[in-house]
Amino acid sequence: MKTRIGILGYGNLGRGVECAVRQNEDMELAAVFTRRNPADVSVLTKSAQVCHINDAADWKDKIDVMILCGGSATDLPQQTPEYVKYFNVIDSFDTHARIPEHFANVDAAAKENGHIGIISVGWDPGMFSLNRLYANAILPDGKDYTFWGKGVSQGHSDALRRIAGVKNAKQYTIPVDSALEAVRAGSNPELSTREKHTRECFVVLEEGADAAKIEQEIKTMPNYFADYDTTVHFISEEELLTNHSGIPHGGFVLRSGVTGWEREHKHLIEYSLKLDSNPEFTSSVLIAYARAAHRLANEGQSGCKTVFDIAPAYLSAKSGEELRASML
Amino acid sequence: MKTRIGILGYGNLGRGVECAVRQNEDMELAAVFTRRNPADVSVLTKSAQVCHINDAADWKDKIDVMILCGGSATDLPQQTPEYVKYFNVIDSFDTHARIPEHFANVDAAAKENGHIGIISVGWDPGMFSLNRLYANAILPDGKDYTFWGKGVSQGHSDALRRIAGVKNAKQYTIPVDSALEAVRAGSNPELSTREKHTRECFVVLEEGADAAKIEQEIKTMPNYFADYDTTVHFISEEELLTNHSGIPHGGFVLRSGVTGWEREHKHLIEYSLKLDSNPEFTSSVLIAYARAAHRLANEGQSGCKTVFDIAPAYLSAKSGEELRASML
Repeated sequence: MKTRIGILGYGNLGRGVECAVRQNEDMELAAVFTRRNPADVSVLTKSAQVCHINDAADWKDKIDVMILCGGSATDLPQQTPEYVKYFNVIDSFDTHARIPEHFANVDAAAKENGHIGIISVGWDPGMFSLNRLYANAILPDGKDYTFWGKGVSQGHSDALRRIAGVKNAKQYTIPVDSALEAVRAGSNPELSTREKHTRECFVVLEEGADAAKIEQEIKTMPNYFADYDTTVHFISEEELLTNHSGIPHGGFVLRSGVTGWEREHKHLIEYSLKLDSNPEFTSSVLIAYARAAHRLANEGQSGCKTVFDIAPAYLSAKSGEELRASML
Repeated sequence: MKTRIGILGYGNLGRGVECAVRQNEDMELAAVFTRRNPADVSVLTKSAQVCHINDAADWKDKIDVMILCGGSATDLPQQTPEYVKYFNVIDSFDTHARIPEHFANVDAAAKENGHIGIISVGWDPGMFSLNRLYANAILPDGKDYTFWGKGVSQGHSDALRRIAGVKNAKQYTIPVDSALEAVRAGSNPELSTREKHTRECFVVLEEGADAAKIEQEIKTMPNYFADYDTTVHFISEEELLTNHSGIPHGGFVLRSGVTGWEREHKHLIEYSLKLDSNPEFTSSVLIAYARAAHRLANEGQSGCKTVFDIAPAYLSAKSGEELRASML
C-alpha cells in the first residue's frame, strides 16, 4: 500500500515534490491543489488529478500526507493549522523567529483532529538544524558555525528587483573561504557578518536607468547588503537567462569543540550540502518526512513534530533489520 | 536529578567517558567497574567509586545507565546481553557483520528485564551510519562513499606489532585526496580498495631485525595491507613515542545523488569528522546516547535500540521548546 501524497501549491517546491514522489516506489501522487483554475494547470504525473484548493477537504480519506508548498510569510502560518484538521501535513516553514508560535498553532489543531503535522522540514531549517543538534549534544564544549552558499537567495534577488530601474536580477550568497578555513583549523574565530559571506549581484537594468546610482543603492541597502562586501555586475537579460536561471544552493554547518580532562583534544564536525536545485532538494527532504508522518499516524500518534522529534529509521523505506544489516 | 553513570572497563574508552561525564552538567559518574584489583585503579573523578566487575549487579539501583567500554571481539557479545539484565546499557559494538545477532541477543534480555540497551554507538557505527541513513532517505537515486582517516587504526597497528622482529608500531589510514575530489565533483566514480585509502606504517624494529624482510612481510599481508599502497617508515622508539602517541581519527561520509523529472540536477551531501582523540569523541557520543537511554527508560520503554531508533531531541539536555527556539 503506497503512501498517497497530495501537493498543495504548484510552484518550484510543488514541482520538486512531484519529482521526488516519482523517485520513491512506496509513494504515489494522488492530487495537486492549486488556487488557479485547475484546467489551466498541467502536471507531469499522468495519474494525478489537479483540483482547486477549495476542494481539498473532500480528499481527506484519499490522501495520506498533504505536502504544503506555500510560502512562509503568509501562506503557511494560515494553511498548516488549517489543513492539519483534514490531513497529516508537512511544511517547510522557515521563518526561524516564528517557529515557536507556528508549532503551538499546528500542535493544537493536529491533536484535536488526530493528525501529524511536521513543520520546518527542508535543509535550513531541517538537515542543518539536525546537524546543529547532534553536534551540540556530542560536543557540549564548542562553537557553532553555519555558512550558506554558494547559492541563490530568493529574498535578496527579490530585494534587487524591487529597486526602481532594475528589470531583473539574481543574487548569490557566497561563503568566505578564509573564514571557513579558519573554522576548520580549529581557531574558533569570532566572525562578523561581513567576514562570513559576500554577496554577488547580477542585475539587468531598465533602459535609461542610472547604473552608478543603482549600484550605490544596492550596496547601502540596510539588512540586505549594507553589512556585506557586495559586488554588482550589470548584464543583459539574455546573459541572465542563459547563465543565471538555475537555483543552486548549499552550505556548511560546523561545530568545533574540545574533550579531555584538561580540554586538550580538539574535534571538528562538518556537514555540507552542494545542491544544483534548492527546491528539488528541499522537496526530497519533505518526501522522506512524509513517509515518517504516515508511519507515525498509523501508530496512532498525533500533534506537531519537527525533525528533532523523528527517529531517523522512520525516514527510510527499509525495515529496521535491513537498515541494521546494510547501513549501521 | 542527574543521570548516574557507571563505566564498565577503564581503558582509553572508559577514561574518555569519564571526561565526557564531566562536560555534561546533567550527568554524574557513580562508579567504575574493573576486572583488575580496584585498589590498583585510580580514577580522575574524586567522587566516583572503583569496584570489581563482579560486584556490578549490586549497583542496579544506584546507576541509571551503564556504559560498556569493552572490546567488540569477545567482551561486548557476552557483556551487553548480561548487563542489560541489571541496567540500561550503551555499547560501541563495531563488528558490523555481527550486529544483527548482537541486536537480537540484547533485545531479548532487555525486554525480559525492562531495560534499554543502545548498541553500536560511536562514530562508525554511529554518526556515520546516521548520515548514511539520512542521505539515502533524501536521495534515493545516488551512490554512497565512506572514507576513513587520516587516523590511527588500532587493528592494523596490532597486526604490525604481531610481526616477529617488530618492537612497536603505529599505522595510519589515509584517504586518497584525488578519490575524495572525484566524489565531490559528482562523477560517481567506481573506486577500488586501493584507490580509496593508503596505509602508512611507523615501525620500531627489535635489535638485529631484518628491515627489508619485515617491510616485505607488511606490504604483502593479506586483508590488512596487500590490497593497499602501503608506505613503511622505520623509526626509533623515541620518535614513535614523541610523534605518534596520539589516537587521532576521522573520515568522510558522502552521498552523491540526482533529482528532477529527468534526473537532471546533482546534489552532494557530505559529513566529516576530524578528531584529535578517537576514544574521547566516541565516548562523547556514548554519553549523549546515555541521556537518551535514561529518558526512554523513564518513559517505560525497553528493548534494544540503535542510533536509527532514537529521535535526535533525546540526545540533548535542552527541552523541546529550547531546541526549537535555538537550533531549528
